[in-house]
Amino acid sequence: MDYYSRQISELIEELSKLPGVGNKSAQRLAFYLINRPMEDVQKLSDTIIGARKNVRYCKQCWTLTDQELCPICSNPKRDRTTIMVVEDTRDLAAYEKIGKYEGVYHVLHGAISPMLGVGPGDIKLKELMVRLQGDVREVIIATNSSLEGETTAMYISKLIKPTGIKVSRIASGVPVGGDLEYIDEVTLLRALEGRVEL
Amino acid sequence: MDYYSRQISELIEELSKLPGVGNKSAQRLAFYLINRPMEDVQKLSDTIIGARKNVRYCKQCWTLTDQELCPICSNPKRDRTTIMVVEDTRDLAAYEKIGKYEGVYHVLHGAISPMLGVGPGDIKLKELMVRLQGDVREVIIATNSSLEGETTAMYISKLIKPTGIKVSRIASGVPVGGDLEYIDEVTLLRALEGRVEL
Repeated sequence: MDYYSRQISELIEELSKLPGVGNKSAQRLAFYLINRPMEDVQKLSDTIIGARKNVRYCKQCWTLTDQELCPICSNPKRDRTTIMVVEDTRDLAAYEKIGKYEGVYHVLHGAISPMLGVGPGDIKLKELMVRLQGDVREVIIATNSSLEGETTAMYISKLIKPTGIKVSRIASGVPVGGDLEYIDEVTLLRALEGRVEL
Repeated sequence: MDYYSRQISELIEELSKLPGVGNKSAQRLAFYLINRPMEDVQKLSDTIIGARKNVRYCKQCWTLTDQELCPICSNPKRDRTTIMVVEDTRDLAAYEKIGKYEGVYHVLHGAISPMLGVGPGDIKLKELMVRLQGDVREVIIATNSSLEGETTAMYISKLIKPTGIKVSRIASGVPVGGDLEYIDEVTLLRALEGRVEL
């Protein structure tokens, strides 16, 4: 990229390392940033550095947070006897957006994947088992409906069953508003198997 | 976004101000950055601040550069008697990528748009006219093929004609590899009008 001067090329290169940012978007972002007021750019930079420095795992549910305990774990109104197990912090956010779930969470930071060499020891599973020694009535497994998510769900369920704690899995089937015609076969089969009496 | 702790929410908010970055992508970027090694994040931040601080206009062609003169204007091999006029630095880069153009550039930083209230005084047009007092043989107008680009091209051409300097416009027509069936009518008409004898 010697048609751009060095600092512009470097900025484009750094930005194109970001996920989902190709060379074209990186150029667009670079020129956008170069043309912004200095204080805006400084604020972006400070926010990135600040978050990177201070964000850590919640010592209870292992989500990412800037305090020792995340806003959910430190909320006395949440039901600590129900734990929803999710793969990452964004999955937690997806459920929190609905605002209907009143229990707490446990963030695994991944899913078991023999293909990618991710074993049970590579996700926050031991940490979940430790939490189950407290007063827990139900563990809701809300890992993704992918091969890895399902494998992880099966694994966790087998692990918890002997403790006598109720284990459930979020339902899998046709999404609301989904047109049967466009839904894949596995989902259709799953929806059939999981049919509920009316 | 109170399901994320403050610093994470702030980071997502800052990132979603970037062009082409929606809330979902901002979340993805935020968690990516939080999980990167500190030195990578520091380097990104430093590169942004550095570029913002040091990048300015080339005092000759007005492209963005971190030196007084851009790499093209300071290259003695470039033909200073041919000036290609483009709307922005990325358009310059698009032509430089091909590596066939040997002249220099002039970056307008915009195009005349009565709709958006951008007049001839709002783009680097006066600066172009000053350059034309030197030894210039041809001005190639390579503004976009949009309404604004065409208006700007017409305006510049009328301004330069009296000086006796040759003014040309890059060709407009069916893109190479383009399937006639999918090309819009205006382009088809333009291609017909601009037909070349074989």
